[in-house]
Amino acid sequence: MSKTTDTFVEQNRDRLLEELKEFLRIPSISTLPEHRGDIDRAAQFVADSLRHVGMENVEIVPTAGHPLVYADWMHAPGKPTVLCYGHYDVQPADPLEEWNSPPFEPTVRDGNIYGRGTADDKGQMYMHVKAIEALRAATGTLPINVKFLVEGEEEVGGEAIAKYVAENPEKLKADVALVSDTELFAAGIPTLCIGLRGLVYMEVESSGPARDLHSGLYGGAAPNPIFGLVELLSKVKNANGVIQVPGIYDDVEPPAPAEKRSWKRLPFSEEEFRLKEVGSSELTGERKPSVLERVWARPTFEVHGIAGGFTAAGAKTVIPAKVTAKVSFRLVPKQDPDKIVAAFREFVEKHTPKGIHFQVRILSSGPGLSVNPDHAAIKVAAKAFSDILGKKTVFIRSGGSIPIVGDFATHLGIPTVLMGFGLPDDGLHSPNEKYCLDNYYKGIMTVAHFFEQYGAAAAAQPVAIPNPRAD
Amino acid sequence: MSKTTDTFVEQNRDRLLEELKEFLRIPSISTLPEHRGDIDRAAQFVADSLRHVGMENVEIVPTAGHPLVYADWMHAPGKPTVLCYGHYDVQPADPLEEWNSPPFEPTVRDGNIYGRGTADDKGQMYMHVKAIEALRAATGTLPINVKFLVEGEEEVGGEAIAKYVAENPEKLKADVALVSDTELFAAGIPTLCIGLRGLVYMEVESSGPARDLHSGLYGGAAPNPIFGLVELLSKVKNANGVIQVPGIYDDVEPPAPAEKRSWKRLPFSEEEFRLKEVGSSELTGERKPSVLERVWARPTFEVHGIAGGFTAAGAKTVIPAKVTAKVSFRLVPKQDPDKIVAAFREFVEKHTPKGIHFQVRILSSGPGLSVNPDHAAIKVAAKAFSDILGKKTVFIRSGGSIPIVGDFATHLGIPTVLMGFGLPDDGLHSPNEKYCLDNYYKGIMTVAHFFEQYGAAAAAQPVAIPNPRAD
Repeated sequence: MSKTTDTFVEQNRDRLLEELKEFLRIPSISTLPEHRGDIDRAAQFVADSLRHVGMENVEIVPTAGHPLVYADWMHAPGKPTVLCYGHYDVQPADPLEEWNSPPFEPTVRDGNIYGRGTADDKGQMYMHVKAIEALRAATGTLPINVKFLVEGEEEVGGEAIAKYVAENPEKLKADVALVSDTELFAAGIPTLCIGLRGLVYMEVESSGPARDLHSGLYGGAAPNPIFGLVELLSKVKNANGVIQVPGIYDDVEPPAPAEKRSWKRLPFSEEEFRLKEVGSSELTGERKPSVLERVWARPTFEVHGIAGGFTAAGAKTVIPAKVTAKVSFRLVPKQDPDKIVAAFREFVEKHTPKGIHFQVRILSSGPGLSVNPDHAAIKVAAKAFSDILGKKTVFIRSGGSIPIVGDFATHLGIPTVLMGFGLPDDGLHSPNEKYCLDNYYKGIMTVAHFFEQYGAAAAAQPVAIPNPRAD
Repeated sequence: MSKTTDTFVEQNRDRLLEELKEFLRIPSISTLPEHRGDIDRAAQFVADSLRHVGMENVEIVPTAGHPLVYADWMHAPGKPTVLCYGHYDVQPADPLEEWNSPPFEPTVRDGNIYGRGTADDKGQMYMHVKAIEALRAATGTLPINVKFLVEGEEEVGGEAIAKYVAENPEKLKADVALVSDTELFAAGIPTLCIGLRGLVYMEVESSGPARDLHSGLYGGAAPNPIFGLVELLSKVKNANGVIQVPGIYDDVEPPAPAEKRSWKRLPFSEEEFRLKEVGSSELTGERKPSVLERVWARPTFEVHGIAGGFTAAGAKTVIPAKVTAKVSFRLVPKQDPDKIVAAFREFVEKHTPKGIHFQVRILSSGPGLSVNPDHAAIKVAAKAFSDILGKKTVFIRSGGSIPIVGDFATHLGIPTVLMGFGLPDDGLHSPNEKYCLDNYYKGIMTVAHFFEQYGAAAAAQPVAIPNPRAD
């Protein structure tokens, strides 16, 4: 049977690629209002694809934001139900001039497909759809019950899906969720992610004078909102990356010794990470934790963008009236986003310089998460993964945030299999984002094997995982 | 005689306004390359105006940057020569949405003319031209010899005129320069500016990772160029505005006690300055010096603009590869710009965070200046000013920078009469820049009186003033 799904993939490589390209050509950038039409086209594409592979009750669900796509196939009585999640929206493509081929004209080079959304997440979510097609082509049916819920706001906070999941627990009832939006630890190494960081993303606006002022005539007496913001932000963490907001580390639990030991066995070189991935002269951050611990299991503070005053070519001697920065905290499991926001607001108030007014706006917020590696679905997924890639599956965490995993835990009470096929150098959110084509094909095979083996296993074995919002 | 020039102005009010409006309609923004054609149109307008009032040898001088306009009238043997300077270029008009009438469609409201360049400096430099017209209309000749040198790069550093003055001391030979690019201390108070701050304007570019990174996957280990820049800038001055760059105060001389006493007699309220001009909740800066001392006689550091990372609407979780800030130091007389730049470079190097690379680019640089209030031309100017405005002339400084005054001192060995008719709330460099029409007319009268009285005084009395670049 599984041979047959593998064969299906092998025999349809070109078509599976062309169909993915069609999906990738839609510039469904969720954060830019001018791409709203593309968002709708991408949702329609997903719905059509699901219908095409035999999913039923396919529905484009309108929301206050971007539409969700729902579908199900529930004809495997007594078998478990897997809820497949993915997102059809993508990050902005800027800076455009740094792309070697157009971000929305997917191009194959050296066994990779280049384009915005190839790895994050269109190329990965589409594997789920194609695994269904492979199974039905090979067997005429599916070994488990399946539901799909695909969103278009993952890159902008995912408000609509969070609300939908909270309001529709019966409709979405399942034994486990499947998310492919993470990466292999390294090429060829089957990897399941069992921990994610949370995220609180905010805008801080700094204002001072009532209007832009001439820096010669007022400099020395008028508050400068840029300098005020610089003063504030510089205090949020010290030179070693230690966050200075009181209470921020209160609920941070160190990783278990066994987990830390397993990280040491991973094929990871800090020097290679610095050279090949980051490309900086040095790495930074807290002194004691290793790089993996810093990005997986420690809260961090980053400034993502800042803009204000005169920024065109040349010189303008202005003290601007305001300036805005986009900042975030990454959180680890047990940290409460609301508590972090409150602590930050208090910190901002305490460190407001003379003559400056700060306004903090929350753009998105979600907790960190962990999944129990002993859950039946996780064990089966690890085996399917090993079968296809021919190596032992490793369990890692990710420093990124997938808020929906928290929503599934909270509202549906189910764990999530984070089975991703990206690679560390895929360039998510960067120019020249890519996805390894071999991983695309093997991903389809692995998902199909996972469904088969999960269906073949005894009755579904629901395991409660800790509710991250309740503890 | 002087009655007649006053009468000329009174009888030609409408025409003098319409001609100025024509000049103001040219959007001669020197820092934006797309306005290069407007720069040429403005230079042509100035040349035509000078020709029209009888100036001779009118010349549009091409330069590596924007053209200069030269003209002279040298038919008053035995009389002193005044070199009239002004600039026909203007600041950018952004933010456009904050203007109540279009920046380049000059509009009269409540006795003011609104538009970019009304006060800085088209409205003021045009007074010199019209004073020539008034004198020739009233007397058929001029009481002194006159040269004009008008530039189009004042708002972007004035490189071309600096080179031209250095290379043409014979051609520009004069007894005194006249610059109207400053303001009355308050409405109705005749004011001569005898001190200017210098300026070193720089761009600081901060870079870290080789490319934009996903903040989830790399945050905690990758250097963040925005945070690195924030760390650097926050160290340049402390919360009280005291610059922390070593050596920066070495050559700062306190104002003479008599000058400080005279400032205390000026009609100045710090509270009114805060409310009506700055519009902030508090004033800032060094604790001990008064507001006037802080903006006139103390070096300051400002950030004028900053831009990097994701700054559109919404959220993007990126660690950007680079970010740039525009910053400046204002300098007081005796401070050497080159020394300040060197000290700043050393400071930047010393405070470069791990993994960050800073690049400092100098955009413009010029020293602070002072003029001897006992010079004959200054005394005559003070009297002419008092005559027209009916009050005693006060001597002040300005926190702004007019680099050309330093060039005239260095290369021509002459002092400058800084006789400005702007008002503190004119909004230079801001939206809704304005110029009081009454000051425009009285300015023409005052300049005409100054020329008459300077010509009537005994032989020109050249007084050496300290060379600001040599001490």
